[in-house]
Amino acid sequence: MSKTIKKIGVLTSGGDSPGMNAAIRSVVRTCAYHNIECIGIYRGYQGMIEGDFLEMGARSVHNIVNKGGTVLKSARSKEFMTVAGRVKAHEQLIKAGIDALVVIGGDGSFTGAEVFNKEYGFPVMGIPGTIDNDIFGTSHTLGYDTALNTVVDVIDKIRDTASSHNRLFFVEVMGRDAGHIALNAGIGAGAEEILIPEEDMGLERLLESLKKSKATGKSSSIVVIAEGDKIGKSVFELKDYVEANLPEYEVRVSVLGHMQRGGAPSCFDRVLASRLGVKAVESLLEGKSNFMVGMLNDKVSLTPLEQAIKGHTEIDRELLRVSEIMSI
Amino acid sequence: MSKTIKKIGVLTSGGDSPGMNAAIRSVVRTCAYHNIECIGIYRGYQGMIEGDFLEMGARSVHNIVNKGGTVLKSARSKEFMTVAGRVKAHEQLIKAGIDALVVIGGDGSFTGAEVFNKEYGFPVMGIPGTIDNDIFGTSHTLGYDTALNTVVDVIDKIRDTASSHNRLFFVEVMGRDAGHIALNAGIGAGAEEILIPEEDMGLERLLESLKKSKATGKSSSIVVIAEGDKIGKSVFELKDYVEANLPEYEVRVSVLGHMQRGGAPSCFDRVLASRLGVKAVESLLEGKSNFMVGMLNDKVSLTPLEQAIKGHTEIDRELLRVSEIMSI
Amino acid sequence: MSKTIKKIGVLTSGGDSPGMNAAIRSVVRTCAYHNIECIGIYRGYQGMIEGDFLEMGARSVHNIVNKGGTVLKSARSKEFMTVAGRVKAHEQLIKAGIDALVVIGGDGSFTGAEVFNKEYGFPVMGIPGTIDNDIFGTSHTLGYDTALNTVVDVIDKIRDTASSHNRLFFVEVMGRDAGHIALNAGIGAGAEEILIPEEDMGLERLLESLKKSKATGKSSSIVVIAEGDKIGKSVFELKDYVEANLPEYEVRVSVLGHMQRGGAPSCFDRVLASRLGVKAVESLLEGKSNFMVGMLNDKVSLTPLEQAIKGHTEIDRELLRVSEIMSI
Amino acid sequence: MSKTIKKIGVLTSGGDSPGMNAAIRSVVRTCAYHNIECIGIYRGYQGMIEGDFLEMGARSVHNIVNKGGTVLKSARSKEFMTVAGRVKAHEQLIKAGIDALVVIGGDGSFTGAEVFNKEYGFPVMGIPGTIDNDIFGTSHTLGYDTALNTVVDVIDKIRDTASSHNRLFFVEVMGRDAGHIALNAGIGAGAEEILIPEEDMGLERLLESLKKSKATGKSSSIVVIAEGDKIGKSVFELKDYVEANLPEYEVRVSVLGHMQRGGAPSCFDRVLASRLGVKAVESLLEGKSNFMVGMLNDKVSLTPLEQAIKGHTEIDRELLRVSEIMSI
Repeated sequence: MSKTIKKIGVLTSGGDSPGMNAAIRSVVRTCAYHNIECIGIYRGYQGMIEGDFLEMGARSVHNIVNKGGTVLKSARSKEFMTVAGRVKAHEQLIKAGIDALVVIGGDGSFTGAEVFNKEYGFPVMGIPGTIDNDIFGTSHTLGYDTALNTVVDVIDKIRDTASSHNRLFFVEVMGRDAGHIALNAGIGAGAEEILIPEEDMGLERLLESLKKSKATGKSSSIVVIAEGDKIGKSVFELKDYVEANLPEYEVRVSVLGHMQRGGAPSCFDRVLASRLGVKAVESLLEGKSNFMVGMLNDKVSLTPLEQAIKGHTEIDRELLRVSEIMSI
Repeated sequence: MSKTIKKIGVLTSGGDSPGMNAAIRSVVRTCAYHNIECIGIYRGYQGMIEGDFLEMGARSVHNIVNKGGTVLKSARSKEFMTVAGRVKAHEQLIKAGIDALVVIGGDGSFTGAEVFNKEYGFPVMGIPGTIDNDIFGTSHTLGYDTALNTVVDVIDKIRDTASSHNRLFFVEVMGRDAGHIALNAGIGAGAEEILIPEEDMGLERLLESLKKSKATGKSSSIVVIAEGDKIGKSVFELKDYVEANLPEYEVRVSVLGHMQRGGAPSCFDRVLASRLGVKAVESLLEGKSNFMVGMLNDKVSLTPLEQAIKGHTEIDRELLRVSEIMSI
Repeated sequence: MSKTIKKIGVLTSGGDSPGMNAAIRSVVRTCAYHNIECIGIYRGYQGMIEGDFLEMGARSVHNIVNKGGTVLKSARSKEFMTVAGRVKAHEQLIKAGIDALVVIGGDGSFTGAEVFNKEYGFPVMGIPGTIDNDIFGTSHTLGYDTALNTVVDVIDKIRDTASSHNRLFFVEVMGRDAGHIALNAGIGAGAEEILIPEEDMGLERLLESLKKSKATGKSSSIVVIAEGDKIGKSVFELKDYVEANLPEYEVRVSVLGHMQRGGAPSCFDRVLASRLGVKAVESLLEGKSNFMVGMLNDKVSLTPLEQAIKGHTEIDRELLRVSEIMSI
Repeated sequence: MSKTIKKIGVLTSGGDSPGMNAAIRSVVRTCAYHNIECIGIYRGYQGMIEGDFLEMGARSVHNIVNKGGTVLKSARSKEFMTVAGRVKAHEQLIKAGIDALVVIGGDGSFTGAEVFNKEYGFPVMGIPGTIDNDIFGTSHTLGYDTALNTVVDVIDKIRDTASSHNRLFFVEVMGRDAGHIALNAGIGAGAEEILIPEEDMGLERLLESLKKSKATGKSSSIVVIAEGDKIGKSVFELKDYVEANLPEYEVRVSVLGHMQRGGAPSCFDRVLASRLGVKAVESLLEGKSNFMVGMLNDKVSLTPLEQAIKGHTEIDRELLRVSEIMSI
């Protein structure tokens, strides 16, 4: 049986995403609500190894619900991947009297948490924080909704100038392995074509589609491309290829990059972060461990960390159809 | 058996909401995709009675996915509530060769559609468009997500000045019968208290809570209040009451009003509108009628219009708890 | 001759405005650049009386250039209006070794600074921080440009819903004595009429103008009204009056209120704040005192505080004409 | 003496910028105000050659004051650079009864207007529309203020993630020949270094500066780089160079690109556009020709087109100093 939990540590790890601060705030305040101490751990697992800790009371997270980034900073730690590193980390937790851990991050961060739990039986709970929405066991990850709004807002701006000049734009968005951002932001921004890692559209079909666009009287076109699309060319090579084959098009490229990770979180991400933080802490207090908290069917729910790590999220095929119909 | 549908009419009715244009675009393009004609009906049922119609091809809805409001305009029609009005409306549809109707709006608009369907057996399909999120059969109505972002964005601004002056703000948001906006935006904006129609907090508890806020060292406070809260005082009366009873507080009031209905829709609302528009048209083409399309458990689904009208959406009690914990 | 300045105090006073933090940062960093100590004084003159001071180094103002509000908080101090209060304040400055003062605020704050300078010969320099743009000696006050963007952004949202319903909106903006916000935001937002304190439009002309709007085919109208307009009716009374006299109009009212004071400052306000902060500190170091720094003819310049307080800014008559032409 | 002007043509040419629509609206409505006809010319000089004209009344420019891009579209015309092309263009104007021309664009567009005026004595008036702010005779060009806000907004987002990971970011902004955007947005966004075409900072000084940043405890750094900076390396080469020489830094690159040209114009740009449009039309009606309207010392003023083309705008040296002090 698990011993009573009196002090919970919280950290953010991996790539940051909007809503991480709101999740930290939620963990801290839920601890305060239950009269449990809460310790912020700086720079993810690296700060855990180094004992870079801060006691956090309810007032310490004042006015961060709307801030992008993470006040606890994030980092990737090679040392934590070693047994020696985790030994040090465990010693630090024991020294500080920390009984359980909330890890806010993605796949890699959860793997670290799971290994740590296996080795030490240390209670851990994961909160999915990544803009890519590629984590099994939750319909939405923290920051995904905000990133979608950032992307459509930028493409709206690009469309202003695309329309004014009858141009073709290739817009590259984040998503090395998952096309969620590209597909949803592409539909939201009214993209003519969307290239994602899950589908091999093929160069020929892209050319056909662009030719058809011109023929049906579209004056400008936006193609949204996930980093990891299946076409196997960089977005700049793709530009050269299209211009060589469709000389009627002048192509402009825009690589959105890291701005997608920042910004004030959307209301959706703030509420999501608040709900997941409460559930993570209260699940630990109920003696549960080794789960990820997430949203399934509009309800907060738990998924074993192991499944969250190994499971694979699928692109919604219905959305592919919607995208095709919208770009007629 | 239903006859083959060759021409679909689409209208927006009742209060407008962000995403209505994206839904119109989706209906128009899904018609084009299936080689069906699409007719835009201006000013809701009133325009139907007057035959204020416009043929809409795929290009006609270019560049509206990101626009607030509705290009078809909206209106409330008293004439359509009469038998004589509906007779005229039916004649106009027949004259124009319209076989089926997509109605984008709220409860009242759906009631009109259902009556019309009963009287004439006319195929109708509803798309829930209202910022209030108070329609049974869908987890999200069109415009709700955008309105939440508008509200938290404004409260973020108000908090800047509240923090600088250690003040108490009462912010009134939309929601005569439903507290969804107040509750979610309140959590998202980090409100200290949230007053909603579904719960009678009571004046005493509000005073207690505000006293406690002061005592725990909060330097400023935001109270989010739905229009139809149960306290039974106007927000200005509430200000007077609180100032009389808690002289340490200087209260400022902000009534957000109609700005909540406008603005470029969020990515969420654009994708939602696109999905619902496809489903509405394709359901009509499959011979279905008298349903509302909505999202349930993250899937597009159909709910009989009658249920959508009579059913009641509940506030998620879990969110009330989250709100309480967050404002510790 | 002025003695060498080694330690400068900075405070924000009166109503807060976006850009105040950027100005604090600029004062702090300019001090660091010149190897001068800088002391932040909390809550304006009240904190000065109470000795509520904080030493501020270059790193202490990291990441505040883009934040609304003021990290030093603001307050109005009745005690500082008394001789006794100013005696205490002077003692606190002497005790802390502060040699000179930068005051960020409006008219009232400058009056305090000037009196203090007269009584003690204490070097003071003012930076105009108010959204109202009503200070003589500068073309722009800190926060004015941001407030204009906030107002047009909100009216853009309101216009979405106004257009969808063919309605008339009255939008009240800040400006008790000055119509700068109403006039510029009104032009920027495409308002049909603009009511400002500097001009008595008269009720008859307003009715005439609204009638004409309807006649020329305008489907919706926005009237922007400064708090202190000359018509002498509250915006709600005005609504009743117009609805009584022009029954074809359904009027909606929106009072924007304090949200106008908040939000991330525009680039313009951030650059302005940075420039004024440098000039304020360097002018003190050059032995100057009792001036306000401002922008005149696109150059940073100095105006005696006395003139800044007594002088009156005029509405640009050319803008009134532009407004009239634009609303044809 | 100039003949009476009864019909004015308006076009947008060259790269588009936010505020062009507001300027078109102003030209159209000022014509309506003076009972002059107004003709919109599509796609700049190319549309003039092809007679691609549209009559525009006061209502036709409804609801465009807040839209990015240009409803008249823009294009570059090689044909207009030939005598034969201009002959055709002149014939089209005569045929359409157009007496005078308002050209909204940049340097290149003004050169075309001036040549045309020389050859045919055709009355022309220029409005400076470009985000680069590199036109002599005006303190601000249309779209510049909006572009600055877009850039700082994006860098604010990038800083969220930079701060969370202690990273160095290189952000490339527009400005091939002019550093106005880089310098102002760099100050506004709190950049540690700013590289502009007007100044050769040198690689050594950049390395020194970055080393110093690290030493003084800055946890993250943003370097803003104008496209045409003097360092003579692409932003990607610069990244490689810095990483080779300062291995303690992990550099990320962001090229903002065309998004800088789009988006809803700021209030400043809308008011500027409105003022310049009025002045352009009324100056033509007063018999003036061959001028650019602009803002000098906060007043609308006229500069001979020839000077506007040949003159050179300087970077404000004071801003370079401010930038240096701010990044201490």
